[in-house]
Amino acid sequence: MRLRNVKNKEEIMNNSTYLLKDYKNYLGNFHKLFKNNNPIELEIGCGKGRFIINKALSNPNINYIGIEKYDSVVARCLEKIPEGINNLIIIRMNANELNEVFSKEIDTIYLNFSDPWPKKRWRDRRLTSKVFLEKYDFVFKNSPHIIQKTDNKDLFAYSIVSLSTYGYKIIAISFDLHNSDIENNIETEFEIKYSENGKNIYYLEAIK
Amino acid sequence: MRLRNVKNKEEIMNNSTYLLKDYKNYLGNFHKLFKNNNPIELEIGCGKGRFIINKALSNPNINYIGIEKYDSVVARCLEKIPEGINNLIIIRMNANELNEVFSKEIDTIYLNFSDPWPKKRWRDRRLTSKVFLEKYDFVFKNSPHIIQKTDNKDLFAYSIVSLSTYGYKIIAISFDLHNSDIENNIETEFEIKYSENGKNIYYLEAIK
Repeated sequence: MRLRNVKNKEEIMNNSTYLLKDYKNYLGNFHKLFKNNNPIELEIGCGKGRFIINKALSNPNINYIGIEKYDSVVARCLEKIPEGINNLIIIRMNANELNEVFSKEIDTIYLNFSDPWPKKRWRDRRLTSKVFLEKYDFVFKNSPHIIQKTDNKDLFAYSIVSLSTYGYKIIAISFDLHNSDIENNIETEFEIKYSENGKNIYYLEAIK
Repeated sequence: MRLRNVKNKEEIMNNSTYLLKDYKNYLGNFHKLFKNNNPIELEIGCGKGRFIINKALSNPNINYIGIEKYDSVVARCLEKIPEGINNLIIIRMNANELNEVFSKEIDTIYLNFSDPWPKKRWRDRRLTSKVFLEKYDFVFKNSPHIIQKTDNKDLFAYSIVSLSTYGYKIIAISFDLHNSDIENNIETEFEIKYSENGKNIYYLEAIK
């Protein structure tokens, strides 16, 4: 997610207790940061944070980490997090680095409205490409578990084939999440906008 | 596929050389019937036969078997088959009997516009349910290979999850077959009608 430049982004980032700056020091030890052994779930590309913040508020016994690569977006997200949440941190990082930051400690990865990278030559940049699935193998604790939402039909089709051929089983799917029997959905900022415009939201859940 | 009663269906069925009446005598020996060791592909619910007839005409080195349970539909199909095709037979049978009729000899199964059996209590009747996938295991030669087309979104979603959890890998998929890069599609009678009405055609290919 890109966003207009936020002028005081440095200030917001420096002052927020939710932004983990020395994230490279916790490889394999994120449970120590959270001071418990609860499951840790990761959103790659958390955008302005609506999803991950509400997840953290709804599930106090699960730890959440949102990663996001753009400073301005991170700043907007940090501004939105209410005080006193103990089970949420945000990291400004690129998903390419995932396997250098996390090791065998993530229970679920959320991919919400990721960049579809539509051209064939960009395929490896899609967050469900083999390139990333290989990184996720380093990151997952025991049993890999990926939950994806997107409005992009082509990314969704690509993801089904990529996950499936990589050895994932698709255990739940919807081509119209908002009219499905899948419960407790938390909408992202994008999702609200897209579904107001009449777009279908695609959803899948995969395990390995 | 149901159809208005065809009055002379018995006569058509008795006179056609394409209808295999003693199909229960060939278990494991269908290659002898075709007098070659070419691959054998099966369409479950071949309807009026447009797909399987054109497949047989386009691929002389593959043998095709179309099964269909309704007499009147079988009769309409038989009427349409041109003379002199050596790589096609039709069987009037119920898909429930599949594992009593074929044994380790089918290379590909086609499921075209199968009944979606929409109610939950009918789930086991869907041709991609575990009940049928277990039957197909008896039927497939080496590596199971299923190709499905449908206009029914719910059946398609169900099939992805059912195939995937049963151990199939989805190796190709389209949510809009007629605007995809999947080539050499042969349309069924239903498919022509549905797509004329602006319906999307869903397509998947799975291997185990």
